[in-house]
Amino acid sequence: MTRILITGATGFIGRHCLAALAGAGELHAASRSPRPADGSVTWHSADLLDDASITALLRTVRPTHLLHAAWEATPVSYATSPENLRWLRAGVTLLQAFGDNGGERFLGVGTSAEYARSETPCIEEVTPIRPETIYGHAKAAMHQATCAAARHHGFAAAWARIFLPFGPGDPAGRLLPSVLAAIRRGERVALSDGLQQRDFVYAPDAGRMLARLLLSDGTGSFNIGSGAARSIRDVVGTLARLHDAETLIDFGVKPRREGEAEVLVADVTRYVRLIGALEATPLETALRALSAQA
Amino acid sequence: MTRILITGATGFIGRHCLAALAGAGELHAASRSPRPADGSVTWHSADLLDDASITALLRTVRPTHLLHAAWEATPVSYATSPENLRWLRAGVTLLQAFGDNGGERFLGVGTSAEYARSETPCIEEVTPIRPETIYGHAKAAMHQATCAAARHHGFAAAWARIFLPFGPGDPAGRLLPSVLAAIRRGERVALSDGLQQRDFVYAPDAGRMLARLLLSDGTGSFNIGSGAARSIRDVVGTLARLHDAETLIDFGVKPRREGEAEVLVADVTRYVRLIGALEATPLETALRALSAQA
Repeated sequence: MTRILITGATGFIGRHCLAALAGAGELHAASRSPRPADGSVTWHSADLLDDASITALLRTVRPTHLLHAAWEATPVSYATSPENLRWLRAGVTLLQAFGDNGGERFLGVGTSAEYARSETPCIEEVTPIRPETIYGHAKAAMHQATCAAARHHGFAAAWARIFLPFGPGDPAGRLLPSVLAAIRRGERVALSDGLQQRDFVYAPDAGRMLARLLLSDGTGSFNIGSGAARSIRDVVGTLARLHDAETLIDFGVKPRREGEAEVLVADVTRYVRLIGALEATPLETALRALSAQA
Repeated sequence: MTRILITGATGFIGRHCLAALAGAGELHAASRSPRPADGSVTWHSADLLDDASITALLRTVRPTHLLHAAWEATPVSYATSPENLRWLRAGVTLLQAFGDNGGERFLGVGTSAEYARSETPCIEEVTPIRPETIYGHAKAAMHQATCAAARHHGFAAAWARIFLPFGPGDPAGRLLPSVLAAIRRGERVALSDGLQQRDFVYAPDAGRMLARLLLSDGTGSFNIGSGAARSIRDVVGTLARLHDAETLIDFGVKPRREGEAEVLVADVTRYVRLIGALEATPLETALRALSAQA
């Protein structure tokens, strides 16, 4: 029997994983605040920054499969927050409790921010790991801790480095929700030149990819992206066009964030080789869905 | 005022760091069991696997400089011990307590076991980090955690990857002490072919190099080695020759440890560029000193 536990199940990434895993086995989800029972999911209220709460959760659920999506994610500040170190400590406790309770397969959520700058698409086993933020360092540390725990306990482990997710549930304050909110108010939007190349991945696609990874037997690191490099100008421009609001967007009036990478895109060959295909909702379809949100 | 704290100060590496730091500032040392007071060093008894003990220690000492040498180090088993994960957790607590108490400069003790296999000397910013043991993964995680904490708290951080240390204090059960003990008993010594290339670094040299690093303003990773590649056959042969016991050594009668690297040697350019010179006691001198131990 596959008994799946998802942490951070109400978060931006976790909710899409949960949706994608419906029917895949006995499904358990952890969140900070209690949730009403639900036909397909057993909800557990747990504070994952508290060791006793982690151990109790794992002892209760005894998951065979664990998808660890919980982490500090406050827009903008998450990159520099000391909460990342608390999540790292909690992550180590979680890994040990998972192993101690018979866990078989762990999938951790990593980030493109673990990679060194690269003008070419990042490749899991080739591009150096050289983060430039507290967030990137803490996730890279969590990846190494995952490998250590997997070796000790003998469970299988995979690590998913998500590129630039967007879509339903994207917290206000992140790029596309901010642009969308301004357009709706009829306000002008001041942006940098927007020529930065990114791999925008639709969050429901990312959720489906993580679900497939969790249920696969692949181990090691996997990039989670759309496989396409797009400029911020292209993506924001498409969103504005859908709302007939192209004239509201002012590119080049704000400086870029200090130290921002010119290019940060994913090579998704390793994922495709394992699973057989990408999840790749067309950009316009995805942006329409984002726009349809309340 | 430079106020230095050394953790693991009674350990194999820590004791040599402590000796090398005599007179460098106000010197504090932590160990599990209480130690008699000593003119030049203030000893603190602390259990670094206990969060409250870590925080109390850092609040008491308030070091400006912290050399973190404490870690799981039981010969042979340290590589696969789950204690590595406890030391990682404790390390994160220590980093935070150091930052919270005004710490200025942190030096962590890493290992050559963090690197991917490389037929050529390992270079800090070039050779990939791809450990193959729990120990290597946990140390690589601690390195990333160190970078995260340094960015948050604004302290300077360096990370010293020690290659193959040997010398006074080398725990029984490790290669050279085992060979030496057998020679002294007049027993034959069964070894593998011994053609593996390693960077043997004399532990008092390593201690001096760590002391210099701690007091420097260098940041990032530094290999700690002798800068010379030697075969195990060469080093064990030299030790046996010093005792007129070459005929006791049987190379090639045991298989190598599974998965053992053919070559694991250090490029020490980055250290030399910072400090100006290596500490490099000649091999024979070092082996004589080792032999002179009780």
